[in-house]
Amino acid sequence: MLRFPRLLLPAVLAATLTSALPADEGMWLLTAPPRAQIKERYGFEVTDPWLEHIRLSSMRFNVGGSGSFVSADGLVITNHHVGFDAIQKLSTEQRNLVRDGFHAKAAGDEMKCVDLELNMLVSIEDVTARVNAAVPEKAEADASNLARRKVMAEIEKESLEKTGFRSDVVTLYQGGAYHLYRYKRFTDVRLVFAPEQTIAAFGGDPDNFEYPRYCLDFSLFRVYEDGKPYKPQHFLKWSKDGAADGELTFVFGNPGNTSRLLTLPELDFVRRLSVPMQKATLKARESLLISWSARSAENARRAKDVLLGIQNGRKVRDGNAAALYDPVFWQAKVKGESDFRSRLAQSPEKFGDALAAFDKIAEAQKRVNEIFPRFRMIEQGVGFASDSFGYARLLLRAAEERAKPNGERLREYGDAGKASFEQRLFSEQPIHEDLEIVLLSDSLQYFAEQFGPDDALVLKVLDGKSPRNRAAELINTTKVRDLAVRKQLYEGGQAAVDAAKDPLIEVARILDPEARSVRKEWESLSETKKQAQGALARARFALEGASNYPDATFTLRLSYGAVKGYEENGQQIPPFSTYAGLYERNTKQNNREPFDLPTIWQKAKTKVNMKTPFNLVTTHDIIGGNSGSPLVNRAGEFVGIIFDGNLQSLSGDYAYDDRQGRALSVHSSGIIEALDKVYGATAIVAELRNGKR
Amino acid sequence: MLRFPRLLLPAVLAATLTSALPADEGMWLLTAPPRAQIKERYGFEVTDPWLEHIRLSSMRFNVGGSGSFVSADGLVITNHHVGFDAIQKLSTEQRNLVRDGFHAKAAGDEMKCVDLELNMLVSIEDVTARVNAAVPEKAEADASNLARRKVMAEIEKESLEKTGFRSDVVTLYQGGAYHLYRYKRFTDVRLVFAPEQTIAAFGGDPDNFEYPRYCLDFSLFRVYEDGKPYKPQHFLKWSKDGAADGELTFVFGNPGNTSRLLTLPELDFVRRLSVPMQKATLKARESLLISWSARSAENARRAKDVLLGIQNGRKVRDGNAAALYDPVFWQAKVKGESDFRSRLAQSPEKFGDALAAFDKIAEAQKRVNEIFPRFRMIEQGVGFASDSFGYARLLLRAAEERAKPNGERLREYGDAGKASFEQRLFSEQPIHEDLEIVLLSDSLQYFAEQFGPDDALVLKVLDGKSPRNRAAELINTTKVRDLAVRKQLYEGGQAAVDAAKDPLIEVARILDPEARSVRKEWESLSETKKQAQGALARARFALEGASNYPDATFTLRLSYGAVKGYEENGQQIPPFSTYAGLYERNTKQNNREPFDLPTIWQKAKTKVNMKTPFNLVTTHDIIGGNSGSPLVNRAGEFVGIIFDGNLQSLSGDYAYDDRQGRALSVHSSGIIEALDKVYGATAIVAELRNGKR
Repeated sequence: MLRFPRLLLPAVLAATLTSALPADEGMWLLTAPPRAQIKERYGFEVTDPWLEHIRLSSMRFNVGGSGSFVSADGLVITNHHVGFDAIQKLSTEQRNLVRDGFHAKAAGDEMKCVDLELNMLVSIEDVTARVNAAVPEKAEADASNLARRKVMAEIEKESLEKTGFRSDVVTLYQGGAYHLYRYKRFTDVRLVFAPEQTIAAFGGDPDNFEYPRYCLDFSLFRVYEDGKPYKPQHFLKWSKDGAADGELTFVFGNPGNTSRLLTLPELDFVRRLSVPMQKATLKARESLLISWSARSAENARRAKDVLLGIQNGRKVRDGNAAALYDPVFWQAKVKGESDFRSRLAQSPEKFGDALAAFDKIAEAQKRVNEIFPRFRMIEQGVGFASDSFGYARLLLRAAEERAKPNGERLREYGDAGKASFEQRLFSEQPIHEDLEIVLLSDSLQYFAEQFGPDDALVLKVLDGKSPRNRAAELINTTKVRDLAVRKQLYEGGQAAVDAAKDPLIEVARILDPEARSVRKEWESLSETKKQAQGALARARFALEGASNYPDATFTLRLSYGAVKGYEENGQQIPPFSTYAGLYERNTKQNNREPFDLPTIWQKAKTKVNMKTPFNLVTTHDIIGGNSGSPLVNRAGEFVGIIFDGNLQSLSGDYAYDDRQGRALSVHSSGIIEALDKVYGATAIVAELRNGKR
Repeated sequence: MLRFPRLLLPAVLAATLTSALPADEGMWLLTAPPRAQIKERYGFEVTDPWLEHIRLSSMRFNVGGSGSFVSADGLVITNHHVGFDAIQKLSTEQRNLVRDGFHAKAAGDEMKCVDLELNMLVSIEDVTARVNAAVPEKAEADASNLARRKVMAEIEKESLEKTGFRSDVVTLYQGGAYHLYRYKRFTDVRLVFAPEQTIAAFGGDPDNFEYPRYCLDFSLFRVYEDGKPYKPQHFLKWSKDGAADGELTFVFGNPGNTSRLLTLPELDFVRRLSVPMQKATLKARESLLISWSARSAENARRAKDVLLGIQNGRKVRDGNAAALYDPVFWQAKVKGESDFRSRLAQSPEKFGDALAAFDKIAEAQKRVNEIFPRFRMIEQGVGFASDSFGYARLLLRAAEERAKPNGERLREYGDAGKASFEQRLFSEQPIHEDLEIVLLSDSLQYFAEQFGPDDALVLKVLDGKSPRNRAAELINTTKVRDLAVRKQLYEGGQAAVDAAKDPLIEVARILDPEARSVRKEWESLSETKKQAQGALARARFALEGASNYPDATFTLRLSYGAVKGYEENGQQIPPFSTYAGLYERNTKQNNREPFDLPTIWQKAKTKVNMKTPFNLVTTHDIIGGNSGSPLVNRAGEFVGIIFDGNLQSLSGDYAYDDRQGRALSVHSSGIIEALDKVYGATAIVAELRNGKR
């Protein structure tokens, strides 16, 4: 599924895109929609009223997702996996809404969510001039930053006071433009309907990112105001037949973040070092946990969540690698950068800074490549995978950092993050000693293999023992898994931590000089790159203005595209899956997890129309954060809901590619068929069809 | 389980061991047993009659395993996994003896095996002088080899004609000594008893190499001669109580091969390059196949065998790596080589060759390290994993090689191997196109990541496409999976292969110049190392004679040791597992595969004595080939049967290590309890207890 955010380690951005966009590319600003392209490709005229209608029908979920109004009585549709957090928080031991689903048959049954916030984008204002005016022209980077942050905060405060709306100044084009987004906030949100998780995420990890799919990945909420259902001025009418093959559709949603503007040396680092190393680590960890899980049911239970996360990550990295090693994909990137450079070179007097920025980035990146393996192993802790080591390092560093003035501390030990830091350090989550030993011994072995058995740090850490025996010794003798000990050491500060002579804290101490030094260099290189990228972004915006789209910022964007199958391994993959396909897959898998169906679905088998479309693929340019975005037709009607991309769409972090990459939606007719024939949710069906209760 | 043979890629050997052996180390020649060590450590006197008794009770299985006579009526016991091949060949669709087991209740029920050969070692003769005398002193390496092979063949032929016994001249100490082993051959071998595979290999892959274990890994055969049960002069009496904690016991069996004498640069290559690369490849392949298997039951069925092999290999490599990165283990190796060098240096006039050999090996190894990644990827085909590519290369090379004189061809295309080559090329095993695409695309991706996207060979192979698309294209368009096409191309020779323009054969052609050249260099370096190792081995034998044991040669050896638990992760692992433990593990795993029990075992739960020992661990020095070896007490009685080593014993390829490494056996009382209480095999129980029918 589309998880939010899908961050790559080096979250750095730069401007390289050519303005000649292929096909249906782009996550467009609503203030600068690609009217000409849409008109040219699809003969459709994007009008202001049409845009406003959909903008005011769209919703942003604060948990990291999108949604839309689908009735005049404030009914909102999103993904099940976007609503998941709220659904889980409403569950109790006796009432497992995640497993069993939920259906409010009467208005009074709707359940108020704990901390769900929805935002409706009411206006957008360009405040670039005011922001830039507040920044002194010749200021140092730090002073500029400070001045910029100050004026942005002022604008937000003023706006909030004046309008009462949530007001966010959004940095677009990495500083090329600043827009003030005003949102109407909804905090009384109630759960109306959720299917069972087994059908919402049918096929689980094995089918994750695959297609054809059969996921009923939607849930329904109702927005209330003053204790009554909110009556939105705008909502999406439910389409009678849903999306058809080849049809032009639109996605309105909040894509989280992309790294489309990385320069070639940065992207080359991703493909040669970062992604292959992450792949190797994830697959080794997966093998380890699968093997350990097979030893007992209890082991399997303990490792399950971690393993699922690893498997999701492994699919994402495999997808990234597939894109980055595709010569066609890469050549497009090369051409993009080369074209951009040529355009800059035409006005060297104007773009001198930008042209120099390329070299600055390349130089910094060279050093990043060199230090990355040690940064990753020692500071990011890949060589010390275990919760116990995590605690040991937090305790060691907290003692040192808290003794310093706030401004001089490592970021995560600052006063601002104190509460969340302490929440993390004093977590009461269960830690399993046996799993800790398995994880630490495997990662110490990896540490020794990568750096070599004679590496000075390896020798010090292993202390003359094998990785396996050293891990067992450390995990068995450390006291940091004891909450009381953590509290005592944290409160006792440096003296207490030193006196403890805890073996795992001592290992963290052995690592710390190099860990701190490599981190310092890493952060300084990142800052150098960021400033150079700023110069590129400004140059690019100067050339293109808003004729191109900015990297994703978790704000409302418009994508356009068509319902369209694709070819894979020489086979044509049809655009729609159907109910027949769902039941067939369930039968072929002998109803085994994660291909099992809830009883109510088994019973409904004779009632549903097997030809009803279930999921579909489209060419839209989407990314994590787009989950729950409505798929809208020319008439502005709801024809489906985005819930995932296929494996080939995982190139989307770096570039749009529609040769095989596709966005996945649940078809609107598939939703109605389930509500009607499977769940007998006649009132909801009527509300969706009529656009009101 | 102990698979035979467990070969490391570079099967090269050299002499470095110190003569000061720790603990119970050694796979000793029966002609030079470590009488003094055993006497000193355990106070037991190894006498010639005692040795002869056990030698004549021991059996070698031609499928790669060991066994022993346990009754005067020719009953032989071995492992279930050693007997597996024979048991499977006796199975039919209607009569699945692997799944259901077998029990011959009457003599007439015993089933004759298809092609099983058992060997009893009747005599050993030192023929070193005659072999050496036949080799001219100043001959070139090739001429020496030829002369040596000739005299060995003469000795074998003479002996066979004179005695009628199978006669093998065995090269010991890499040429330090030559012994003539004479075997009585048995080819009429009949299956008497086999348990169900689920209990023989209880715990499957998850428990493989783990301890405590619960495997009833034995089977019973009877040797016939002239249609009647053979009456051996010697057999092992069944011990009344079996092995006890701390008790001295002996293992008589045929260890397959070891690499204990590698020099440090060779071993350093194994730990820094070979093993880590193999680990990474195995784990990535495992992740791929698990993920693919999860997509459908049919996928799982197709990938099962390959996956099990990969998982076994992954455990072995993890075990190798754990040993090689253990500083204690490594320091012992360093000291061993250093001591040996010092002793050589004391007589430089005598050992000049050997002293120079160290440098020769180091120099050759340096180049091996450089070419290994490309040798492995291109010539060994790690970058092209698929049966289709295998066929493509065989066809391409067969056409070229068969046109050459026999002596100039690559080894596998020689006339001698023609039959087995054609059997391989014309195999009718099913190949699944979808699995082929998955495997080839993953390995092409690995190829591109390892060599880099700009590597000239990568660019040529991918032909402007992504690894995934290129793999699909190649697998979908090649014709080599069609047996008729393979026959036609093979018979048509070079002209037919060239004319075919088969896309996958063309890929093999792209690779071939570099593949051949790196292979040529690899083989030449291996030969250089082998000759240098010969010099070291001769020097070592000159110093130590038979006071040390030679590397394993799949001939009868004696190991000694004690029943002894060990400490792991801070916990004491007891030496014995019990029936109670078996049933507990089965229950905790909810009887799910591979922890399920046959119905007959579930029914017997109330009948068996839960305290009966099931498996046990001992300190013996064993390796693949020792499977089925009897565990014998001072009285020469059968007290158990070797079937595996634990994870920590996987260091055994390179050195003996008894800190945690243990040999695993089935306890003799555990066998009787099963035969008696579970299977009601009263006749067999009586035969074992009485030593006759």
